Parts: sequence; structure tokens; C-alpha cells
Amino acid sequence: MPYRAPVSEIRFVLDHVVGFDRVAATEAFAEATPETVEAILTEAGRMCEEVLAPINRAGDLHPAHLENGVVRTSPGYAEGFAAIAEGGWIGMSADPEHGGMGLPITLTMAVNEMIGSACLALQLNPLMTQGQIEALEAHASDEMKALYIPKLISGEWCGTMNLTEPQAGSDVGALRTKAEPKGDGTYAVTGQKIYISWGDNDFSENICHLVLARLPDAGPGTKGISLFMVPKRLPDAEGNAGVANSLKVVSLEHKLGLHGSPTAVMQYDGATGWLVGEPHRGMAAMFTMMNNARLGVGIQGLGVAEAAMQHAVGYALDRKQGKTPMGEGTILDHADVRRMVLSMKAETFAARAIAMDCAVSIDMAKATGDAGWTARGAFLTPIAKAYGTDIGIKVAGDGIQVHGGMGFVEETGAAQYLRDVRVTAIYEGTNGIQAMDLVGRKLMDGGAAAFALLDEVAALGDAELSAAAGDLRALTEWLLTQDMQDRFAGATSYLAAFARVLGTHAHLKGAAADPARAPLARFAKSQMLPEALAEMAKARAGAEGLYAVATEVIAA
Amino acid sequence: MPYRAPVSEIRFVLDHVVGFDRVAATEAFAEATPETVEAILTEAGRMCEEVLAPINRAGDLHPAHLENGVVRTSPGYAEGFAAIAEGGWIGMSADPEHGGMGLPITLTMAVNEMIGSACLALQLNPLMTQGQIEALEAHASDEMKALYIPKLISGEWCGTMNLTEPQAGSDVGALRTKAEPKGDGTYAVTGQKIYISWGDNDFSENICHLVLARLPDAGPGTKGISLFMVPKRLPDAEGNAGVANSLKVVSLEHKLGLHGSPTAVMQYDGATGWLVGEPHRGMAAMFTMMNNARLGVGIQGLGVAEAAMQHAVGYALDRKQGKTPMGEGTILDHADVRRMVLSMKAETFAARAIAMDCAVSIDMAKATGDAGWTARGAFLTPIAKAYGTDIGIKVAGDGIQVHGGMGFVEETGAAQYLRDVRVTAIYEGTNGIQAMDLVGRKLMDGGAAAFALLDEVAALGDAELSAAAGDLRALTEWLLTQDMQDRFAGATSYLAAFARVLGTHAHLKGAAADPARAPLARFAKSQMLPEALAEMAKARAGAEGLYAVATEVIAA
Repeated sequence: MPYRAPVSEIRFVLDHVVGFDRVAATEAFAEATPETVEAILTEAGRMCEEVLAPINRAGDLHPAHLENGVVRTSPGYAEGFAAIAEGGWIGMSADPEHGGMGLPITLTMAVNEMIGSACLALQLNPLMTQGQIEALEAHASDEMKALYIPKLISGEWCGTMNLTEPQAGSDVGALRTKAEPKGDGTYAVTGQKIYISWGDNDFSENICHLVLARLPDAGPGTKGISLFMVPKRLPDAEGNAGVANSLKVVSLEHKLGLHGSPTAVMQYDGATGWLVGEPHRGMAAMFTMMNNARLGVGIQGLGVAEAAMQHAVGYALDRKQGKTPMGEGTILDHADVRRMVLSMKAETFAARAIAMDCAVSIDMAKATGDAGWTARGAFLTPIAKAYGTDIGIKVAGDGIQVHGGMGFVEETGAAQYLRDVRVTAIYEGTNGIQAMDLVGRKLMDGGAAAFALLDEVAALGDAELSAAAGDLRALTEWLLTQDMQDRFAGATSYLAAFARVLGTHAHLKGAAADPARAPLARFAKSQMLPEALAEMAKARAGAEGLYAVATEVIAA
Repeated sequence: MPYRAPVSEIRFVLDHVVGFDRVAATEAFAEATPETVEAILTEAGRMCEEVLAPINRAGDLHPAHLENGVVRTSPGYAEGFAAIAEGGWIGMSADPEHGGMGLPITLTMAVNEMIGSACLALQLNPLMTQGQIEALEAHASDEMKALYIPKLISGEWCGTMNLTEPQAGSDVGALRTKAEPKGDGTYAVTGQKIYISWGDNDFSENICHLVLARLPDAGPGTKGISLFMVPKRLPDAEGNAGVANSLKVVSLEHKLGLHGSPTAVMQYDGATGWLVGEPHRGMAAMFTMMNNARLGVGIQGLGVAEAAMQHAVGYALDRKQGKTPMGEGTILDHADVRRMVLSMKAETFAARAIAMDCAVSIDMAKATGDAGWTARGAFLTPIAKAYGTDIGIKVAGDGIQVHGGMGFVEETGAAQYLRDVRVTAIYEGTNGIQAMDLVGRKLMDGGAAAFALLDEVAALGDAELSAAAGDLRALTEWLLTQDMQDRFAGATSYLAAFARVLGTHAHLKGAAADPARAPLARFAKSQMLPEALAEMAKARAGAEGLYAVATEVIAA
């Protein structure tokens, strides 16, 4: 069963669950009328069905590879990227001043979901570029913006993020790459970076690397890090890609999935770079880039969940086997298969609602400047990232299981979804780090953002959901009294519980708007609320129990 | 970190959790003294560390493949298999009359666990042969036993199971392969079988296929199925592998994992076969073969969990990054990483305890003929299979997560564990089918076996565990009042809850025997009991809610 863009499902969530009409009612996003939304989703959906989904398996079978130091991309990827670029989907939310459409990030995320469903490995490329555009809009000089952003939006050039080094993964502050002033306003960047998604390709005129590095006078840790633009080819006087910079792709990783996406080890040998933003303030700039990228990765998980769910439903509807009290039908008549499929649908809906809710908050914050919206979006971001990718992995796994033996055979494509989506729980901050962010930084407001969300949940008036929200409020209050280690010990469970309460809320809101959705909502509630309660209990376990198990016992 | 055989850990479970001393106290298994157990585990463990673990990655990188109709196995596999055969590990529990050692199945399972940890793709080969030996011991004529079993035990020949056909997966009764009497006591077997694990290899003199097929006068469904021995080479007058039979490998599957294990499509073109057991009673014979094979597959999940856990612990102990309140140590000092690693350890321990408990019951049933032991083993088998493989997948996934970005890179090996183990939740009856067996067939005793197990759990005297066991008893009683569809709707959750209650019980028993284990047991309980309660709530949802979601809504 080929991928079908879930345009009406996305519109339902926008219109009846996350209140996108509020975004469209702002002056900043007045153009995002229902007609525009419908047109955008329909057009992007058609591209995903007709151009991108058909190249997904080719990317898996014919990975990007290095040929005499040059990355060769998978068959059809150049054409797929051209379709994305020509459709204008890269710069949908970018500033019109530089060629963007200025549309809400919510719509970018909706389009990204469909592109991610159709071909995740390729979608990672524009996702990186979108993050770079945001970072440049927020931190670059006007000159740099004018030079780079239009070409990033058009897809002539594309962008990467260079954070990780062999000794500095999640602990970015441990990085060693150096940047030395050359006296002409530029810097010589030297060092090695790893896990650079789309570090090179053979269909872009230029690759714009945003690189974290240390100036000579930099202190240790994250406070001594600056951000540099280090393009593969130096822009000439006309702003076109000119002579080659002193950087190269050393190797590509051999990965579990996302074979179509070249993951590079990059070497910078005194490469020419330009400072982006203030010296020693690189982490702040990078966080700008990472923040929406985190939501974008949550959307990647969602996209794969949607595709894997459709794929499994298609198989289940087609596969006749065995008798049930429902007669001799398909395997979907078997209670346990039906349970799996409904879980997949329910979790996909919940992840979409949470992600779009987060995106709406970000748009509202931008449009209104209201601190409440900002806090709401900030609180929802780690949940959208971790839950979206966790359920992406779970739904892809369930998809394999629905296929039975066929799920283990690569030709069906069920396994590729799992292999591709697995990394989304790791990159842009592991899901453990998302959870730590939620119970740490995101509770620094004394729980205000959390409580405001729980108020919304309780306002729906569903008795069991309100009870669960009350438990979650009590847990939040308890966490606020704990030291950071105890919070971290329960962080993953706290995030999981919050997502399930929000997910149930979204289902019930949807059911209230459309009674035909009530049965799935009831099922979702019957699964998600018990899980939420279990996670809340686990979240209270505290850190002492973790460290009571001696490291020697663990190592034994 | 290379695999280390967990000999002392296995012995601890045998001695202090599952009461293996009771097996050794029977006349039938009097040879299984503590000294013998120690010697067996140590010797097998050494082989796993030194011979088998080193070839695991080669099997992944260089899959078994078909060359001019002949299967070529992965580098080192022939030597690996020879080590297993020469060690006598295939026929450990087989009847001494035909060359077996007559040792308890518990010890075979303990050795299988280590072989599965070291090289799962290869271990699947002797596992199939062990199942075949059991089926022949129970159903074959004396002549057939004398001809085949010694060669299967020695490893000169090996065995396969041929159940599945393209239209007949979990619904075995739909199979179409025919067997026509040739008038000389043999049969001409014709048909195609798929998913035949180790359907061929280049290191065995002969491959003995046990094939399910229909006699000309067979009725429809499972009652019309008979079992046939169809060897690749027909035994000559001396009982040696002679001329080729009319069967061939059509193709091998390209799989997510287990690349070293050739999964064949087999074609039988009037191949000569011999009836095993009574006509039309093939399913009974196949169930003999499958029953312990199910436990064996649960042990495969356990084996991969152990290996993936060791691998992740080794990485975490080595990887220095970031500061915690515990100082600048390794990532194991981070609360969330420590939580993941402890979960992996706790679940691996629980799966081992449940599997070994099941094996002890099977041995006790065999040694004493006591129906209570038989029922106990039968009840535990689907739990051991589904929980062992579910946690195999979960622990392997956590292992990837602990590795961070390195987990997604194939060279570390973390991803291979997930790819390899994924099929264990599917073959030998999907985990959904295990759960249906548990709430269906295994509750046909009115819950007697379930209640007896829960009595054991409650007897430990832990307040919260006893409360959970009480809830599980109430749930069992409720399920017994429900029709089969409602039971099936909650089957997977019921099994998951039962496993977590038994797992907590095993941890607390272990802690009572060895106080050094108390911290991990407390952690396990803090995670597993909330999960058990959630699964119990989900198990009560019933079937109505599943079918209330219309198929058209699912397909939309």
C-alpha cells in the first residue's frame, strides 16, 4: 500500500484539537487562511505521494557513499530534493525579506511530517537547512543574512549543524575545534566533527556548515564556544559559490538506517569561517537552531509512525488468515492484531496533536510576544520530541509485528521504518536529555507552564482524565521539592506520563468535535491513562535507588 | 567489551531462585550435581566466549547466501557449529539410548542462552535440531529413531521444521503441501514451504526436514495434517546420507537481522518422505516439537538481552562525558543512563528466572509425572517465550540508546542485537499467539495453574507484591467469566502483567538469598509493579472497544 498523505487528518487536528484558527487570526499570520492551509497540504501531500515515497526504498538499498572524497547520493534523491526546493517547502516559515513565505511554523511542521513519512532520509536535509535559516535570522549580520538565506531557501545551497566531536557528544562543552582570527575579519577553523547529517551531497552548489568552535581566548565549557559559518565553497564577490574551502568529508558512517542520508565525519583544516553572532555566545545561537529542530525531529518520529501505521493497516486489510468470531476475514479481525493497529493509530494521533500544539504555541508566541505562549511552547518541545520519536519507534516495531514473518523480511519495507526512525530518539539531544530538560529547565518557572497545561486538560471535564491530571499536578509539585538528581531519575517517566495525559486530552477533544472519533478516543484513554499512572509511580522512585546499586555490581 | 558467559549469574538463579536442587534430587536427573552443572556451564561458556562470540559480526556482514542452488554459510560458522557439536551441546537432554546425555532441559536452556548470546544466528541451527530430536523421541518409530537421532545429536546431520506456506502462517491449518503414498511405505511430498530456518547449509552431511503435509484422504484444517521426515539425502542401507532427494532451496530471505541464518523457501517435488507418528496426527507431533522450542526462543530473547546489556554496560563504563553530582565519571553516573542500564539488568534477570523456572517445571514433570508440574510448565511456556523475546527487543533497544549516536552506527554492534532479536517475537508463534494461548488453552483448567503460581508469589510475604498478585488473581477470575474474544483483547496485557509479577517475585527471592542483590530488586520492583498494574487495567478493556472502531475508520 503506497503512502497516502493524511491531509484531512492533519487538518482535523489543526482545526479541532490544537486551535490553529488562533494563529490564523493574528496579524502576523493572517495569510494562513483555511483555503491556504488546504492548498499547501494538498500540494505538498501530492509531492510526497508521487515523488518522494517512491524513492524511499532506493535510498535504503543504495546508500549515499563516498567516491574519491565526493558524496554520491542515492538514486532519485537529487530529483526529490529539487521537488522539495521548487515547491518552496524549505523556506515556508522564513522571513519574506529573504525570500521566505512567512507562514506559521505549524504549517512547516505539517509539511515536514508528510515529507518525513515519504522519505525520512531525504527530509533530514531540508530540516537541517530550516534550522540554519532560523539561526541566521536570529543571530547573523544583515550582510550574512542577505548572502546566505535566499540561497538556503531556494535550495541552491543547503545547511548543516556541526556540534559533535568524538569526545563531545551530549556534552557539547567538551568540544575542542579551534577558530583563530586571520586578521581580515575571518577565522581559520580547525578540528574534526562527527555525525554531520548531510555533511555533503552532489546536488547542492554549496554546503553551509555552521560550526561550533573555540576562539583563542575562550574559557572552558559551553561559555567558551562561538558559532561560525564555514561554507564548502567560499562565496565570490557576486555571492556565488566560489573556490573550495579547506574542509573535507573524511568518511561516512555505516548506519542502522537512514542510508540515504550521508552522515559525515568532517575535517576542517584552517577552513575560512565567519563568526555568527557574538564571540563566546555560540551556544545561544545553536540553541535557537536546535529548539525548533527538536520539534522537527519529534515530527520525524510522527511521520514515520504515520507511514508505518498506514503500511501495517494496508497489510492487515489484505492478509486473510484464520477464523474469528467476526467470520473469515482478514487478520484485522483478530483481537490482538486489531489492538496493535488501534494502538498505532491512537499513538500517532496523540503525537501529532502534541507536536502541532507545540507548533501553535511557538507561532502564537512569535505573533503575540506573549510570555505564556513562549513558556507553553518551551514546555511542550521536549515532550513533542521524545514522545514523537518514542512512538515512532514503537509504532514501527508494532508494524513489523503486524506483518508477522513478512515484517522481518526487508522487501516489505516494514523493517526500514524501524531502522530509519531509531536515530530520532538519539539526535538533537537524546530523549533522556529531553526529559532532563523538562524536569530541570522547564520547571524553573515553579511549574507554571505545567500547571497551565494541566488546567486545560482538567477543563475538558472528563472525570478519569481530570483525576490523572490531578495526579500529574501532585507529581509536578513533588518534583519541585526534590533535588535535581531525584528529578532526573524520574525524568523519562514524568515525560512519558505527561505525553499520555496530553494525548488522551487530544483524543477526547477530537471526539467532542467529531463523534465518529469517540470509539478510538475511548480505546486510547483505556490504554494511555493506565500507562500514565504507571509512569507517574515510576517517576517517584528517586535517585537513591539508582545509586544504591553499586557500579561494581553493575559491572559484574 | 567482549561477551563474558554469566556462569555465576545463571548458577545463582538455578540455586537460589528456581530451586534446581529439586530437579537434581530426582532419580531421573541424579547426575545433575552442582559439580556437573558448574563444569557444563563453565565449559560451554568458554566455547561461547572464545569460539562463537568472535564470529557473530562476520555472520551479520557476510550473510548466508545461495550459490548455484547451494547455501554457503558465513565465515567461521562451520567451525562454530563443529565446536557446538563436538562439545555435545546439541543432545544434552536427549535420550542416552541414542547418544544423548539425558540431562535436564534446564541445563540445555542454560547452555542455549549462552550460545544465543554469543551468536544467535548460528544457535538457531542446533535449536531446530533439538526440537526435531524431541519430536522424533516422542513420535517416531524405533527404526526411525535409531537411524536419525544419533546423527542429529552428533551434529553430522541437522534438523528443520517445515510448517509455514505462503497462505498459511500462524494459521497452520490452511497448509496445502501434499503427501501421496508411493506403495512402498514411503510418501511423495510436494509443495512449497517458506521461512525454513537453516533450510540448508554447507557443513552438514544431511538436512532432515520435518514437513507438515496432507495425505490424500485428509480432511480440512489442522485435523488433516500429518508429519513427514523428508531428508535432503536419502539414507542408504548403512544409514548414511545417500542420493539426493527431490527437494531444493528456491531462495533465501533478505532479512532485518540473523543474516548468518539461512531462511529458505523450500520446494518439494515429489520428495521421498516417511510418516512420523500416526496419519492426521501431525499437529500433535509438531506441538511436541514447538513446545520446548517456544521456551527455546524465549531463551534466545534472554540471550540477546544478556549480550546487549553487557555490551551497553561496557560502553557506559568506558565513556566519560559530562559532570554529575557523582563527579566527573562515566555516563553511568548520569541518572537516566543508570536507570536504563538498571532496567536492562533487572529485566534480563527476570526473564532468566521465568525461563529457568519454566524449564525446571518441565524437568520435574518429566522426572515425577506430576500433573501439577506439567500444568505449571505449560502455563509458564508462553510467558517465558513472549516476555523473554519482548525484553530481548527492549533491552537491545535500550542498549542502542545507551550508546547514543554510536548505537546507530553498525560498527559498534549494538544495532545488530536489535536486528537479530526482532524476529524472536514473531517465530514459533507470534507473541500475540502466545498471549492467546495463555488466556485460552492455559486457563482451561479454571485458572488452577495461574492460582498456584500466584500462591507461590504471595507466600513470599512482600506486601506490595502480594497485593499485585491479588489483583492478578482477581483479573484471572474475571477473565474466566469472559468470552474468548474479550480474553484475547486483553491477552497481551495479561501476559505482560503476569511476567512482571513473576519477575518481581524472582528478584525478591534472589535478594532474600543474597542481600547484595537487594538494591537491584528494590529498583526492579519499583518499575515492574506499576507496569503490572497498568497492564492489568488495560487487560480489562475487553473486545467491544476494539470492534467499536469500524474497519472503515481504521482503513481511512
